[in-house]
Amino acid sequence: MLETDRLTQDDVRQIVREEIQRAFKKDPATKKLSMVASKGTLDWAYPPLILATAGAAANMEAAIFFTFYGLNIIHKDFDKKLLVAPTGNPAMPMPVPMPDVLTGMPGMKTMATGMMKSMFKKKGVATIKELLDVAVELEVRLIACQMTMDVFGFEESDFIDGVEFGGAAAFLSDARKSHVTLFI
Amino acid sequence: MLETDRLTQDDVRQIVREEIQRAFKKDPATKKLSMVASKGTLDWAYPPLILATAGAAANMEAAIFFTFYGLNIIHKDFDKKLLVAPTGNPAMPMPVPMPDVLTGMPGMKTMATGMMKSMFKKKGVATIKELLDVAVELEVRLIACQMTMDVFGFEESDFIDGVEFGGAAAFLSDARKSHVTLFI
Amino acid sequence: MLETDRLTQDDVRQIVREEIQRAFKKDPATKKLSMVASKGTLDWAYPPLILATAGAAANMEAAIFFTFYGLNIIHKDFDKKLLVAPTGNPAMPMPVPMPDVLTGMPGMKTMATGMMKSMFKKKGVATIKELLDVAVELEVRLIACQMTMDVFGFEESDFIDGVEFGGAAAFLSDARKSHVTLFI
Repeated sequence: MLETDRLTQDDVRQIVREEIQRAFKKDPATKKLSMVASKGTLDWAYPPLILATAGAAANMEAAIFFTFYGLNIIHKDFDKKLLVAPTGNPAMPMPVPMPDVLTGMPGMKTMATGMMKSMFKKKGVATIKELLDVAVELEVRLIACQMTMDVFGFEESDFIDGVEFGGAAAFLSDARKSHVTLFI
Repeated sequence: MLETDRLTQDDVRQIVREEIQRAFKKDPATKKLSMVASKGTLDWAYPPLILATAGAAANMEAAIFFTFYGLNIIHKDFDKKLLVAPTGNPAMPMPVPMPDVLTGMPGMKTMATGMMKSMFKKKGVATIKELLDVAVELEVRLIACQMTMDVFGFEESDFIDGVEFGGAAAFLSDARKSHVTLFI
Repeated sequence: MLETDRLTQDDVRQIVREEIQRAFKKDPATKKLSMVASKGTLDWAYPPLILATAGAAANMEAAIFFTFYGLNIIHKDFDKKLLVAPTGNPAMPMPVPMPDVLTGMPGMKTMATGMMKSMFKKKGVATIKELLDVAVELEVRLIACQMTMDVFGFEESDFIDGVEFGGAAAFLSDARKSHVTLFI
């Protein structure tokens, strides 16, 4: 069809369909994943990092906003800070069933943390360090919540390289353009 | 208007509006609900199942991805595995206020679990078994996380009938087409 | 271009682009934030209220659906009900490291709650009361889950002014039109 030809309804519908398809393709929402990581234990450090790296590997733009206890995950000392506590979580597998008054005894957090790390290692699951390295490599945005940093007394230098800093407004401005939004 | 008529700007705008409306209607995002169920206690088994069945009843396509402790919910022994622990959750209603050192005593998990089940029964809330049956009937997709299954030592045969198996990539591929995404 | 002029393909493409842009702008999804608040402790009361007020301040329509323990947040007695328990959360900063059998002692919840409140006050973080006031002022919808109210024995009059009442279906009907959906 030449530009000088008269356009029919069918021509117009065809143009419209092409343009709509192009507009949807440009919609960044289909490619963006925006998460809040709010928990600071070893077990809950995994889901945001696994989802972000899996998303980035599938060509999604992924961002994680670390707030409250979640700041532990990107702290330089994450390996010491990320513990796991069996108390209050009857769903955690323990070698023998035990009441919380025992799971709460001194040493039990260390035992549970070690047990989980060795279970993960034995099964070939990546460590938190490995997942953080992959996340940075795949350009996952790691954003530390400035308000919680201030409340908990953290400095920018307490965090691993590549971390950005922002507030709830920064998260929402990213999230409102995302298709997958999760609070972990 | 006949096809041979000359198209005016108004005709074209009208066609465009119709096509856009059609394109939006075809968008599956308005009809899809995609959730992660990560917790394995009785209380946290309810939200994903209630939301999935309510969504499916309202003609949404619902999927739940069970990971970490959430695998308990679709385990054949869910009734024994889904307990509730008052320790560490001061928001849980207890007959009398008590410190965690008491809520952690042997027998308290059994007591709290029994109390919650009887509260739910008295108020006519469906049991987990009933919700799972409804979910399967309404074609809610129940997907078990293969990585966590492997870590926790579960086999495919440990789970109820109708469960699918997949990884984080499977969840994200569903979630990026969904309008409602929740991590529970 | 006059209406009587012959429309070229370029004219039509221009019209289509304008109409698509308009259609996307009218899409309420880019402006809606829909959250579930399911936890009833002081620390977990903050994220939904901070995100809702930040969203409303950025011209998003925000709604929070309070369910399970989250009902505490909008209870008239929220100030007494919202406690914080260090037990089972090794990520909570404590003056000295201690095992859960100590964090579970009588008085520790009161101590941890007081400590968090004073940390927040010292850093100029708004109180829950202030955030609730701002939320109401900015027309954030606060919806109490009727099913959980019934199970926990709450009456409509137990909640602060401005609260609406609805079920899971009400939440989903709001959430499926929202771009940001979070389960907290």
